[in-house]
Amino acid sequence: MKGYRVAIVGATGLVGAEFFKVLEERLFPVAEISLLASDRSEGKELTFAGRKYLVQETSPDSFRNIDIALFSAGADISHRFAPIARESGAVVIDNSAAFRMAEDVPLVVPEVNADDLASHRGIIANPNCSTIQMVVALSPLHRVNPIQRVIVTTFQSVSGTGTAAIEELTAQTKQWLNKDELTTHVYRHPIAFNVLPEIDAFLEDGYTKEERKMEDETRKILHAPGLKITATCVRVPVFASHSEAVTLEFSRPMSPAECRALLSGASGIRVVDDPSAGLYPHARAAAGTDDTLVGRIRDDSSRPGGLVMWIVADNVRKGAALNAVQIAEELSRRDLIKVGDRK
Amino acid sequence: MKGYRVAIVGATGLVGAEFFKVLEERLFPVAEISLLASDRSEGKELTFAGRKYLVQETSPDSFRNIDIALFSAGADISHRFAPIARESGAVVIDNSAAFRMAEDVPLVVPEVNADDLASHRGIIANPNCSTIQMVVALSPLHRVNPIQRVIVTTFQSVSGTGTAAIEELTAQTKQWLNKDELTTHVYRHPIAFNVLPEIDAFLEDGYTKEERKMEDETRKILHAPGLKITATCVRVPVFASHSEAVTLEFSRPMSPAECRALLSGASGIRVVDDPSAGLYPHARAAAGTDDTLVGRIRDDSSRPGGLVMWIVADNVRKGAALNAVQIAEELSRRDLIKVGDRK
Repeated sequence: MKGYRVAIVGATGLVGAEFFKVLEERLFPVAEISLLASDRSEGKELTFAGRKYLVQETSPDSFRNIDIALFSAGADISHRFAPIARESGAVVIDNSAAFRMAEDVPLVVPEVNADDLASHRGIIANPNCSTIQMVVALSPLHRVNPIQRVIVTTFQSVSGTGTAAIEELTAQTKQWLNKDELTTHVYRHPIAFNVLPEIDAFLEDGYTKEERKMEDETRKILHAPGLKITATCVRVPVFASHSEAVTLEFSRPMSPAECRALLSGASGIRVVDDPSAGLYPHARAAAGTDDTLVGRIRDDSSRPGGLVMWIVADNVRKGAALNAVQIAEELSRRDLIKVGDRK
Repeated sequence: MKGYRVAIVGATGLVGAEFFKVLEERLFPVAEISLLASDRSEGKELTFAGRKYLVQETSPDSFRNIDIALFSAGADISHRFAPIARESGAVVIDNSAAFRMAEDVPLVVPEVNADDLASHRGIIANPNCSTIQMVVALSPLHRVNPIQRVIVTTFQSVSGTGTAAIEELTAQTKQWLNKDELTTHVYRHPIAFNVLPEIDAFLEDGYTKEERKMEDETRKILHAPGLKITATCVRVPVFASHSEAVTLEFSRPMSPAECRALLSGASGIRVVDDPSAGLYPHARAAAGTDDTLVGRIRDDSSRPGGLVMWIVADNVRKGAALNAVQIAEELSRRDLIKVGDRK
């Protein structure tokens, strides 16, 4: 096998760039690569694995002779082109929210529910970044002692919004140092030296879509339709990595020691939990790494048998590009990619 | 009555400076003022109410002829000098953690438990900043529908640590813009563009002292010894205002509408809660203001009848200096300040 013909939709974006890195680092078998984006980026030159490629405008014809299409260009583009890519014979791994809750679309974090890939019908959804890192940490616990209730508060970096938000935080930081007024374009209020409890649109019931995604997606990925969960999602002036304070109620009591033992042996997790030595996960330490870091594991002082913990991961990496490539690897390993039409 | 003879211990610190502002703004009746600090600041000139004063080194003699001593110089200084100030006839309002949990020391947030002042024996404790803003918001609810359980995650600004931390965040921000390595002195890890789940020392059980303070002080202030509470306290790269995500369980169901109605009429609170119009509290909006801002009030989607909300206040103001001056005002109003020895 020489490798797969891969298309990256949204190649010029933040996650697009991370796809390049992750595919190269993991030596994913890429035979050919198509870099797709909007017409604004048409003709732009990008380097993948030492070779230069021209970015092409995404069109219905873009997916001929493509085995794997990695989408990360927003829900509108996914809605429009993912079905076409599938019809063209590609398997779609979609990083947007477009299909995540569709019944016939597996929503997969490989460490958690790789088996769900078996039933795919051409589109697989990559979960929301803040959901991914949480379920990676919850799953090893949930398997042995079903989680009943989750209360999560997030500290999400601006990279989750994309390049424009990184530029906005940078620009506002400079404005602040120059004692200029802070100008806002991406966020409603300044994000520099501020904290904004608003991620994605507000819903009727006062939650945001981001919070609802964490609730719905966690239930779907963990196969726990009855799981109770509430989320507060907050943007913080951090460039990379999301952090999460999570309170858990289990079916039976779970001790911090048992939790640490379960997580220490789990795939994709690194327990960083020696507070007396100053060891706990933090955003800067997680940036650029693959693992989901878990620490500050302790008894819930408000409920015997429950736990509180702190979960940190690189949201562009494990929260997006890495998870999608891991899905592609699992599909390959399980022989779930149609390569019959390969040239 | 011409006014009180006031001593400020820690006059050169961040809270000290805020004491000046708040005393002036509120036209607190100050007859004389003594500015006290460590020997390093002896002789420094500070301006209060348009007049210049020399800072003096705090000594056992500093409290002769003082009616009110406002302490904000850390627990060690309070342990050492507060009893002396009391013996000298002053009433001490102490901003440190030194006496907060002492049985004979009222721990007071005037909007919540001003009546506790009646039993004071010369020392009154000002609660921890993150506790104050939370109990301001919880108390009007707790009075009509006792709160059973609180789960709180904080987003605390560096001003809570003091001037050196403000300088550290500023310096690291400049270093980052200059692509220099970030140097750390105050915090264990860089705070610029980072999030650190460590405030005050770690305890044996994995909680920090800051988290334990929020638990213990909330129970004491609300007179709710059985209240269940767990806190995760996190430092964020914000200069002013603490933000808090709070999940509440009540004795009986409480709706968001009832909560809003109760808080809208409550002292010291401003409800900012119209998400569809982009209205919610955030740190920059709260900075420099007196009110505790509450918003994002919604049903707890993990527990019927519970609520989730977002509480923001200026930690140096309501969280420290303002609350202490409000205590002094209440003492004055209730005639609880000994002025018999007044010159």
